[in-house]
Amino acid sequence: MITAHDKMTLVKRASSSLANATSAQRTQALLNVSKLLLERTDEIIAANKIDLDRGVTAEMTKSTQDRIRLDAARISAIADSVVKVTTLPDVIGDVIRGMTLPNGLQISQVRVPLGVIGVIYEARPNVTIDIAVLAIKSGNSVVLRGGRDAQSSNEVLVRLLQDALALAGLSADSVHTLDEFGREGAQEMMTAVGLIDVLIPRGGPGLIKSVVEESTVPVIQTGDGVVHIFVDETARLDWSVEILHNAKVQRPSVCNAVETLLIHEKAVDRILPAILQNLSEANVVIHGDAKTQELFEAAVAATEEDWHKEYHDLDLAVRVVANLDEALAHIAKYSTKHTESIITERIENAERFLAEVDASTVMVNASTRFTDGGEFGFGAEVGISTQKLHARGPMGILELTSTKWLVRGAGQTRA
Amino acid sequence: MITAHDKMTLVKRASSSLANATSAQRTQALLNVSKLLLERTDEIIAANKIDLDRGVTAEMTKSTQDRIRLDAARISAIADSVVKVTTLPDVIGDVIRGMTLPNGLQISQVRVPLGVIGVIYEARPNVTIDIAVLAIKSGNSVVLRGGRDAQSSNEVLVRLLQDALALAGLSADSVHTLDEFGREGAQEMMTAVGLIDVLIPRGGPGLIKSVVEESTVPVIQTGDGVVHIFVDETARLDWSVEILHNAKVQRPSVCNAVETLLIHEKAVDRILPAILQNLSEANVVIHGDAKTQELFEAAVAATEEDWHKEYHDLDLAVRVVANLDEALAHIAKYSTKHTESIITERIENAERFLAEVDASTVMVNASTRFTDGGEFGFGAEVGISTQKLHARGPMGILELTSTKWLVRGAGQTRA
Repeated sequence: MITAHDKMTLVKRASSSLANATSAQRTQALLNVSKLLLERTDEIIAANKIDLDRGVTAEMTKSTQDRIRLDAARISAIADSVVKVTTLPDVIGDVIRGMTLPNGLQISQVRVPLGVIGVIYEARPNVTIDIAVLAIKSGNSVVLRGGRDAQSSNEVLVRLLQDALALAGLSADSVHTLDEFGREGAQEMMTAVGLIDVLIPRGGPGLIKSVVEESTVPVIQTGDGVVHIFVDETARLDWSVEILHNAKVQRPSVCNAVETLLIHEKAVDRILPAILQNLSEANVVIHGDAKTQELFEAAVAATEEDWHKEYHDLDLAVRVVANLDEALAHIAKYSTKHTESIITERIENAERFLAEVDASTVMVNASTRFTDGGEFGFGAEVGISTQKLHARGPMGILELTSTKWLVRGAGQTRA
Repeated sequence: MITAHDKMTLVKRASSSLANATSAQRTQALLNVSKLLLERTDEIIAANKIDLDRGVTAEMTKSTQDRIRLDAARISAIADSVVKVTTLPDVIGDVIRGMTLPNGLQISQVRVPLGVIGVIYEARPNVTIDIAVLAIKSGNSVVLRGGRDAQSSNEVLVRLLQDALALAGLSADSVHTLDEFGREGAQEMMTAVGLIDVLIPRGGPGLIKSVVEESTVPVIQTGDGVVHIFVDETARLDWSVEILHNAKVQRPSVCNAVETLLIHEKAVDRILPAILQNLSEANVVIHGDAKTQELFEAAVAATEEDWHKEYHDLDLAVRVVANLDEALAHIAKYSTKHTESIITERIENAERFLAEVDASTVMVNASTRFTDGGEFGFGAEVGISTQKLHARGPMGILELTSTKWLVRGAGQTRA
């Protein structure tokens, strides 16, 4: 029986195939992925139906069922997005820096693939394609471990990826899934030093915490989002209402949705009623501090716990602050360093907020929902890094690369 | 009593001081460091003498004593190198990428400090200044944990750094040492999530292994060096002899010294005797494979263990290979991905070696001793990263930075 370790060894051995492929070969592999997605739509839908039926039996929530569902329209949209990735610039082999040293040595730092990327993720099967496509584009091989909920869909999609690679003359072993090994597969990835160059967890806080704590391979932490919007004294009323609505209601389950509203005390009377009115019409539950509760009867009392909470739902914590300093202090204390936004008309406050807030993405007068690889023009995203090392914010192709130094000499020795 | 955690909390709180300082302030702090090094030379030497005396009592090796020793000339050289760092470009605040999205959002990715850098290191007290200076230059605060062997010297140097910062109007708490907490101080750093943004171990394999395995904060792995030189069929004799001599003999205790010589079988008769003759005159012990032993009687038999070994001493493993493929396979198997060099006159082999060898630094016709931040023009170095994530090869100022995305909008919401 082939083990998880065996499969990772296969990927590691195969990784030189993609790493040394030409850009034209990698593009061909991606075009093959797109083509096969369309050709095999029926097969994918059939496999997906097995997952969905299993989900119904297991009383999966409607929203999880929707996340897992693949239909012809969704598959066609994925196929289109794969083609879009082929049009992005190829970054592998780019010379980033270069110089000639006093002794005549010519050194240059060039962009190379990371090697083997491990991704542990949950639910949505389109993530399987998103990640593999960005990896192939950047010359990386991948070991995938998706959620059990989409195992049948993922199995068909991984085979499709392997076929697409083989048709382009690249090693089919560049992509493997460890789904069949369940939790043990994930465990093996976390300690696969020498086989996996970087591990990216994509999923809920529990998954991410366990990967960060248990891994001996380097990890990129993603997706923790206690996201704040600060409505400043001078904020525009219409923008405040629209941005809060968009950031909370459009898709509350994602990491870039707002979780806490901070509002300047001098903006409370002018702006807060309109925001809260609008949100409660959208069924948002307000968890307010004392001042918010005074103003808005329906608000439930916010506790210390609320300021730490990623609701992922139609809930919003609201706190009135005395000034920008108090807003910055609150954010410094409770932020998970994902995305923070200020709504203001004062340039001084906007610039201070941009400079002093320590987060992957800091915004002025915009919805926090824009922190996203697709929105940023990356084609797709591998996740949103909330750490400072290697990658910060939405991770696209560049974030899947490393560098190496090339040194060309003529017999130089060190003095 | 102040604990290690308290001290790290002080540094974390103080870190906004350096992070938001202007380039002029950071430069002033560095010039103060240089000035104080010269002014306090006597005090530093006196503290260093305590370390050296303790070392003599503890029967420290002569070479360790030499590594720890600070005299007026060395202190003056360190002061000069600090001034040199002030002349390097300031990278904080640089805009790396930027675009206007279709919806009018203006996004830009700017370079920011990592925040708080933890460094666990051994022996040499000049490392204390090197690291702190690069950190200050790049707007980072530091938590240091140096070797017990240089504790008195480090104490004086850390106070000097704090004074230099305060004199520039920056927080003295930006630099602290946990030396007084011994091993426990290092342990606390490894799990200081939220207080330390990145941990860099500098020292022997044992130190690095334990930091990588025990840390929950992100780590950059440095310094492991099983370094190879491949002498190709067409290699020049003179370059081969000189480069091998330099890479092995000049300073055998460092990570960029060569540990294994691979030589093309068709170059053996022409080149190997001269290399081995030269090295044995420099007292290098040759650990050879069967063919090497045939040719060179003084060689001891190399075992499987030798190919994995970082001797850090006047020892060299030697193996004859059939061709470039065999050399590449040997390197892929035993390399720690630090530095690898080929000596060849054939452009095809040089380019294949550069492309296919997976290491931080890959060289053609040059001594492996050049993999060094100082040689690369970085002013100094924090270490040599042997991992692919975040930083690869010699780490200078750029490698101590992260980025953040700034998004400027006018009320945009996501469709």
